[in-house]
Amino acid sequence: MVLGAMMFFPSGGHISSWRHPDVDAKGLLDFNYYKQILQTAERGKFDMFFYADELYVWDRFETGISHANSIRPEPFTLLSALAVVTEHIGLAATVSTTYNEPYHIARKLATLDHLSNGRAAWNIVTSQADEEARNFSRDKHLEHSKRYERAVEFVDVTQGLWDSWEDDALLLDKESGYFADKDKLHNIQHKGTHFQVQGPLNVTRPPQGYPVLAQAGASESGKEVAAEKAEVVFAPIHSFDAEGLLAGQQLYEDIKGRMAKYGRSRDELKIIPGIMPIIGQTEEEAKEKLAAIESLLPEQLGLDLLSHYLGQDISSYPLDEPLPFRPDLSQFNQSKSALERILEMMDKEQLTLRQLYQRSTNRRGLAGTPVQIADFLEEWFLKGAADGFNIQFSHLPGGLDDFVNLVVPELQRRGVFRTEYTGGTLRDNLGLKRPDNRYVSVRADHLAHS
Amino acid sequence: MVLGAMMFFPSGGHISSWRHPDVDAKGLLDFNYYKQILQTAERGKFDMFFYADELYVWDRFETGISHANSIRPEPFTLLSALAVVTEHIGLAATVSTTYNEPYHIARKLATLDHLSNGRAAWNIVTSQADEEARNFSRDKHLEHSKRYERAVEFVDVTQGLWDSWEDDALLLDKESGYFADKDKLHNIQHKGTHFQVQGPLNVTRPPQGYPVLAQAGASESGKEVAAEKAEVVFAPIHSFDAEGLLAGQQLYEDIKGRMAKYGRSRDELKIIPGIMPIIGQTEEEAKEKLAAIESLLPEQLGLDLLSHYLGQDISSYPLDEPLPFRPDLSQFNQSKSALERILEMMDKEQLTLRQLYQRSTNRRGLAGTPVQIADFLEEWFLKGAADGFNIQFSHLPGGLDDFVNLVVPELQRRGVFRTEYTGGTLRDNLGLKRPDNRYVSVRADHLAHS
Repeated sequence: MVLGAMMFFPSGGHISSWRHPDVDAKGLLDFNYYKQILQTAERGKFDMFFYADELYVWDRFETGISHANSIRPEPFTLLSALAVVTEHIGLAATVSTTYNEPYHIARKLATLDHLSNGRAAWNIVTSQADEEARNFSRDKHLEHSKRYERAVEFVDVTQGLWDSWEDDALLLDKESGYFADKDKLHNIQHKGTHFQVQGPLNVTRPPQGYPVLAQAGASESGKEVAAEKAEVVFAPIHSFDAEGLLAGQQLYEDIKGRMAKYGRSRDELKIIPGIMPIIGQTEEEAKEKLAAIESLLPEQLGLDLLSHYLGQDISSYPLDEPLPFRPDLSQFNQSKSALERILEMMDKEQLTLRQLYQRSTNRRGLAGTPVQIADFLEEWFLKGAADGFNIQFSHLPGGLDDFVNLVVPELQRRGVFRTEYTGGTLRDNLGLKRPDNRYVSVRADHLAHS
Repeated sequence: MVLGAMMFFPSGGHISSWRHPDVDAKGLLDFNYYKQILQTAERGKFDMFFYADELYVWDRFETGISHANSIRPEPFTLLSALAVVTEHIGLAATVSTTYNEPYHIARKLATLDHLSNGRAAWNIVTSQADEEARNFSRDKHLEHSKRYERAVEFVDVTQGLWDSWEDDALLLDKESGYFADKDKLHNIQHKGTHFQVQGPLNVTRPPQGYPVLAQAGASESGKEVAAEKAEVVFAPIHSFDAEGLLAGQQLYEDIKGRMAKYGRSRDELKIIPGIMPIIGQTEEEAKEKLAAIESLLPEQLGLDLLSHYLGQDISSYPLDEPLPFRPDLSQFNQSKSALERILEMMDKEQLTLRQLYQRSTNRRGLAGTPVQIADFLEEWFLKGAADGFNIQFSHLPGGLDDFVNLVVPELQRRGVFRTEYTGGTLRDNLGLKRPDNRYVSVRADHLAHS
C-alpha cells in the first residue's frame, strides 16, 4: 500500500485547521514546524510528503483574506530544506504548468532529486483561478483544454531536458580535461505550440531518471493525461459507503484501462485516493473530533468557498432552502471534478444551502477508531479501488501523530504496509521502474542500423 | 569590511577549477560537498555565500561541452538546503529578471528569508547569452537597455509584493477566526510595460523586509540601477597595481555619487570588488599555485572563451600575433563591462592572441602570502575603493580553507574584520537598515490628512 502524507494547507487538510487548539499557527513560516512534521511522517514510513500549492491569495471574497489560511511557503524552497533533515521519504512538489517555464522546473526538480538522493516527485497541476492569472500578467486563466494541451507539452519538454544528459555523459577526467562526453549531451531542439526549448539542461540526469510524476485531474482530459504520463494519481473519494467504494473501483478501472493505448502496464501508475481520517479511541470520540474540526469553519467562509466552487456568488440565497438553480458544468473553467462532486450531492438528495456548504467544504473527514480506519483503507486497497492513499490531516502535527501512532501499526500488523523503507529512491519504494533515456534508445537504434 | 564567499563555478572561480587535484569533482551535485563549503565559510565569518548562476550549458563551442564545468545546481533548491546546516551566513541567489516572473521570485526569496531567519539576498542579473534565450522560447536575448528596463520594473514589482503584507497583517486569532487583517494586505495592482501583477503575495513580508539586493552591472545602465536599487554591488578589479586602485576608487565614487539623486545615503550600498586570492606560505609558492591553476585551462577552451567575450569567433587568427581588429562596444549585446575590460587590455599593451586569452580568462588571481593578501584588501578598504570584497577561490574547498585559515585571522588581527557575527539577519551584519513598507507610509499619510 502506497501512503502519501498530504499537506493541503500548512496547518492541515481543512481551510480552518489553523484554528485548531493544538496547531502552532505561528510556525507556518518556521522551518522547525515542517521539520517536525516530516520527521514524523518518515517515522510512519510514508512513501512521500505531498505538498499542495497555489499561486495566489484567495481574495475574491473578503473572508478569504480575513479567515482562510492564505500563507504557503514556496514548494522547492521548502522541500529542499526538508530533504536535509530526512533520509527516505519522497518529496512531492506541486508545480503549475500554466505559470512556469519547463527549463526552470526541469532544473529545480533535477536539483532536488540530486540533493535528496532520488526522492523528488512532481505533482503536476494546471492552476484554476483567475487570481493566479492576474499575478502572471494575464486577465483570466487559460481555458480548460488549452491548459491540458500546455501541460502535456510542458511535461514532454521537461522529460526531454532530463534526458539531455545521458546517464554516463559526465566524464570528469581531470587528466585529459574532458568534463563531459559531447556525444552524450543533447540539444532537445523542441519547437512546439507553447514552448521552444533548445537545451541541454545544466544539471545532469536526475538519480531517478525522471522524478516521479503525480497528478490529480479527475476530468476527462485529466484522466487521459494520467493514463499517458502520470505515475501517481491523487483521486477523489465520493463517499465512505458501498456506493463510494463502487465509484472508486470504477474510477480505478477507468484510469488503468486507458493505459494500454499508451503502451503502459497497469502497475506503472499508482492510484491514491485522498482521505482525511479523524481518529478516536472510540467511534464516538472520533465523531466529536470531526465535529470540532468542522465547527472551526466560519459560516460566511463556508458559503464563499461554495460560491468559489460553483463559480458564482450564492451568498444572497436563503441558507435553509435548496439552491434554486443548477450550475452548468460544460461552461465551467475551474476544477470540473470539484463541481461534479457538488452536483452529485445536489442530485442525490435535497440539501439546503447550509448543508451543501458544510458537506462540500468539509469533505474527506472519515471518523473512526484506528481499526475502523484500517478496515476502510484495507478494503479499498484489496478490492481494487486504490493502490494506496494520500492521507490528509485534520490538523498538524496532531492528526499526523495520531495516524502514525495508531493506524500505521495496525496496517503493518495486517501486512499491507511496509515496516521499513527498502528502496534507495522514491521510485524504488513505489515499485516504479527507472525510465529509459529517449536519446540512448535512439543512439542504440542508430548503431544497430549502421 | 564586508566579505562574500563567491561560488562562480561550483568547483571554484575558474572554468577549469574542477580539474584541480584537490577538487572532489564527483561532489558537484552532492549536498555534502556544498555543506562543507558553507560551514567553512561560516567558520570564517563571511557575511554571505554568493552563488553565481546561468540558465544554459555554454555550447556555442564544442569545448564548452567537452571541457567547461557546465553543471550548476539550481540556486533556490541549493541555498534553501544550505540554510538548514548554517546559522549566520547570508545566502545570495543569482536570479535573472529576464527569464523569470516577479511573483515566483518574490515568493521564493521571501520563503528563503523566512526559513533562514533573515539571511536571503538576491543577486539581480539580466542574463547575457542567446543560449539562455533559446531555453525560454526566444531566439535572441533581450537588447541591453530593454533588459535593464525590465530589471528595474521586475525589482519594483517584487518589492511591492514583499510589502503586500504589512509586518503586523497576520493576526492568527484562533478565538475570533481572524487569520489576517484585511486592511493590512494589499493588492499591488501593478500594470507596467513588462508585467501586470495584482498580488498580494501568499507569503508574509520577509524578516528582513526585503532580502538584500545585490547587483553586478558595471555598465552605465548597471551603475544607475545599482545607485537606485542595489545594496551590494559586485565590482570588477582591473589590476592589482596603483592604477587598479585608482580605477577602483573612481568606480567607487562614481557609483556612490549617483545615489543622492535617488534619495539614498552612501552607506546604504556596499561595493565589493571580486578578487581571487591564491595564497602561499611564500610569494613564490603562491605564484606556483596560480600558474598551476592557469595551466588547467585547455588552450582551445581559452580561445573559445575569448571568442565568447568578444562576440565573434577568433579561432582562425594566429595565436602569436595581436588580434587584427578592434571589436565595437556600441553594437555589443552581451556583458559590456567584460568587453570593456578586454578592450582596455588591448589598448594598454600590444598583446598576442595567446596572451590576451590567458589574461582575459584568468582574471582576478592575486598570488601572495596571507600578509600580502591582507595588505591588498586593507589598502583598498581604507583608501575608499571598496567596502569589502567578494572572494573567489581557485578551487573548492581548498582555496576557501586557505583563506579562512590564513587570511581571515590576519584581517581580524588588524581589526578590519569581525571576529563574531553580531547581527540577527544578513541585513544587520551588513549594517543595512530594514526598508519601510510602502503601504504603511501611505496609510500613515492618509490618516494624517483625514
